[in-house]
Amino acid sequence: MRETTVHKIKDPDLKNPVLIEGLPGVGHVGKLVAEHLIEELNAEKVIEVYSPHLPPQVIVLDDGTVKQVRNEIYAYRGKDRDLLLLVGDYQSATNEGHYDLTGVFLDLCEEFGVRRIYTLGGYGTGQFVEKPQVLGAANSLALVEEMKGYGVVFQENEPGGGIVGVSGLLLGLGRLRDMDAVCLMGTTSGYLVDPKSAQEVLRVLSRALDVEVDMQALEDRAKEMERIVGKLREMEKAQMPYDTSGEEDLRYIG
Amino acid sequence: MRETTVHKIKDPDLKNPVLIEGLPGVGHVGKLVAEHLIEELNAEKVIEVYSPHLPPQVIVLDDGTVKQVRNEIYAYRGKDRDLLLLVGDYQSATNEGHYDLTGVFLDLCEEFGVRRIYTLGGYGTGQFVEKPQVLGAANSLALVEEMKGYGVVFQENEPGGGIVGVSGLLLGLGRLRDMDAVCLMGTTSGYLVDPKSAQEVLRVLSRALDVEVDMQALEDRAKEMERIVGKLREMEKAQMPYDTSGEEDLRYIG
Amino acid sequence: MRETTVHKIKDPDLKNPVLIEGLPGVGHVGKLVAEHLIEELNAEKVIEVYSPHLPPQVIVLDDGTVKQVRNEIYAYRGKDRDLLLLVGDYQSATNEGHYDLTGVFLDLCEEFGVRRIYTLGGYGTGQFVEKPQVLGAANSLALVEEMKGYGVVFQENEPGGGIVGVSGLLLGLGRLRDMDAVCLMGTTSGYLVDPKSAQEVLRVLSRALDVEVDMQALEDRAKEMERIVGKLREMEKAQMPYDTSGEEDLRYIG
Amino acid sequence: MRETTVHKIKDPDLKNPVLIEGLPGVGHVGKLVAEHLIEELNAEKVIEVYSPHLPPQVIVLDDGTVKQVRNEIYAYRGKDRDLLLLVGDYQSATNEGHYDLTGVFLDLCEEFGVRRIYTLGGYGTGQFVEKPQVLGAANSLALVEEMKGYGVVFQENEPGGGIVGVSGLLLGLGRLRDMDAVCLMGTTSGYLVDPKSAQEVLRVLSRALDVEVDMQALEDRAKEMERIVGKLREMEKAQMPYDTSGEEDLRYIG
Repeated sequence: MRETTVHKIKDPDLKNPVLIEGLPGVGHVGKLVAEHLIEELNAEKVIEVYSPHLPPQVIVLDDGTVKQVRNEIYAYRGKDRDLLLLVGDYQSATNEGHYDLTGVFLDLCEEFGVRRIYTLGGYGTGQFVEKPQVLGAANSLALVEEMKGYGVVFQENEPGGGIVGVSGLLLGLGRLRDMDAVCLMGTTSGYLVDPKSAQEVLRVLSRALDVEVDMQALEDRAKEMERIVGKLREMEKAQMPYDTSGEEDLRYIG
Repeated sequence: MRETTVHKIKDPDLKNPVLIEGLPGVGHVGKLVAEHLIEELNAEKVIEVYSPHLPPQVIVLDDGTVKQVRNEIYAYRGKDRDLLLLVGDYQSATNEGHYDLTGVFLDLCEEFGVRRIYTLGGYGTGQFVEKPQVLGAANSLALVEEMKGYGVVFQENEPGGGIVGVSGLLLGLGRLRDMDAVCLMGTTSGYLVDPKSAQEVLRVLSRALDVEVDMQALEDRAKEMERIVGKLREMEKAQMPYDTSGEEDLRYIG
Repeated sequence: MRETTVHKIKDPDLKNPVLIEGLPGVGHVGKLVAEHLIEELNAEKVIEVYSPHLPPQVIVLDDGTVKQVRNEIYAYRGKDRDLLLLVGDYQSATNEGHYDLTGVFLDLCEEFGVRRIYTLGGYGTGQFVEKPQVLGAANSLALVEEMKGYGVVFQENEPGGGIVGVSGLLLGLGRLRDMDAVCLMGTTSGYLVDPKSAQEVLRVLSRALDVEVDMQALEDRAKEMERIVGKLREMEKAQMPYDTSGEEDLRYIG
Repeated sequence: MRETTVHKIKDPDLKNPVLIEGLPGVGHVGKLVAEHLIEELNAEKVIEVYSPHLPPQVIVLDDGTVKQVRNEIYAYRGKDRDLLLLVGDYQSATNEGHYDLTGVFLDLCEEFGVRRIYTLGGYGTGQFVEKPQVLGAANSLALVEEMKGYGVVFQENEPGGGIVGVSGLLLGLGRLRDMDAVCLMGTTSGYLVDPKSAQEVLRVLSRALDVEVDMQALEDRAKEMERIVGKLREMEKAQMPYDTSGEEDLRYIG
């Protein structure tokens, strides 16, 4: 396999579809939201994307079988519009791969008649975030204005480092194909998987999509996470004579 | 040379062939098993695979001549089924190369009518392993069940990091071509070449293949290795005032 | 997107055009000069170049919208000759990308009838530079002689490390297409964005092009930068008991 | 430029040509020998090879002009056989590039009717070498035997790490095209450019080629180098209270 390949599992006939991207990233915020939506909405897998730009790897599942590392698209049939949800185990391991995969995703958008894209991610602040916000960036001024109405915060030149990976390229390369796209980023420490930040992003997104979603599962994970963070902080205080809160180099726990 | 190229040395007419992959990896467990089989079964080289994804290098042999770094396939004609044994000096040096070479190997499998693949490797535990086990992962539930019958251990979500390289991709990409494939991993420290772990893998494999193989050569290497490990541990104790067993950063010795 | 793509915004009919390259580099000297020229001359954007060799990223602008990372060419219609100004957010992230993008730029030069190229950059000395000089290197002896007339300094085998990236390749690969090209490098510490060095390069360039350019904006930035550098030095003295001038590892401030 | 390109400057009609490769490597031994031969034999440049696998760079010459980084082939018309000498500023910066460029060189060999290749290099011992030897590796047993007659030393499995880069691949991939090739490696510390080691390699090579070459220039460089090494050792002794000979991490001085 030397090229990214698209396996169509079902060929759904979609009305007014919107793409929601939640690939792994900072705090796994986007991934948590998109996977939560797939579960709650009972969305159906329609596409698998395999690529030599993804890590050369299989994942071992609970039952001893394996899954080839891939990206997947699920479809949900809504009242007024259908949703396509893009999730995956990994993003590309190379720069060129991000461009290649984004191109493949945009080709699929054109094929399905997608006119709007939401990309979801986390915005790492380097400090524990008590009340996560949802920062935004969009590829048209009209979309910036619209999103402000849903509580999305736009800050001048933030994120300063730009938006890297598929979440950014879908906006930038989407514009070249006349597709509206907005990136919603939940603020998060960047050190831990953050279901609390994911909740905030989901709240904004469900308002924008006019879709009602039960949040209990995310709520539960957020509470469990807070317990873990609490313990980590206690352990830290016990070990360290001085306070270093906000500078911990914790590893992902999810 | 800009593409992976397949040099056919012989074009064997095979019955029911099974592919056994033993490229270099953790503890060189897979490599030891596959090379032992080639020697004991007196298998015959049928294919050489050259690739720009392998290191740009020749290996110098005993007699002063060189060998271009490559992967090789040997054939053994068994009673009920024939075996193809895939070995080599190196695996790909890039992610994309793993995908490319796996694609080439699967093409050859299709050409030869291979319906089942065994990939062999080591599972690094980070600690010296007294009694190696054989962990498994397979690309179908039926194969998981069958392998349990030969003593293969399946543990939920183990290995946690997935299976990387050709040993993993042959399962994942093999599935996409309707090929059954199982990975057998001998537990090993991961610090040293491990013929003892290789013996365990070979025991399981020969049961599964219903092929009898003399193990003496592996037995001898395992004993020699134990002597080396014993000495290393003594040296260590002599040098270090405190015990660090299980955290040694030993280099490969083979 | 798997290939570098050229988006033509306008198709200008140019007379005697000259290409001026000011992509990001040491001290951002070339970038400062080229962007200053675009602003002062009110040059018009004619081309956007997108490439998978650029970082996979969008930049977030003041108004919350994004810009896909790209290189851009602006056109200015002069009296005797027109100018094309090549600027961008980034240079290629890979070696091969530098070759690919330079090839694309030279194709455009041939299409527009460009016969001469100026590439602009900084020459890092590792020490704060009081009076910046403009070092040169050219792809023909005649051009070396001509440039000496404008005050460009040519030093044997300087820069010793050669000229890396598009600024170098436009000279080297330009020669293979019979295009005259010269690289003008303002000496600079290499630690900070250096508008003072940019002023010197601009002085030489405007003489060579016989174009008058108001320098006030660069002058202002240079003064602001000097204030910042002054403060940094004071802070440094305050913190450090011994003098380390010339070895500071300051980060870019612009 | 996205492909390696061959610029033919002259199209020489050659008799019995032999290729001698002396690209940069350990101790620059091969490069010193090949460049010495070009100068002493007054060989003529016939080919320039440009490649995106070489660093994206120009080199600045004494007169202020630049040279695009490239590999070059020179031709010398001898009595019984002609010589082709392959030299260059750099080798490929990527693994794949080594394969690609070697393929291009072997294509040229086939075109010119080359039946034998000498690749030249250094063999780094990690210690200062008083009396350099010439180690060899060849791609046929007959060639190993022949080379022993010229004083080349063949040691079992040496170099242990194999031969990396074009010097190795010309042997390995050359064999696949039925071309005889031998690598001659002068032992050298690996820390410094080593004209003394180059002299030994040249002695063996000129015997094998039956070509007489004046060695004075290499002799002079070797003496100068010995003076530099002597000084370095004195400085070292002066600075360090304990002896670390053999472990110096000196940078290339040439």
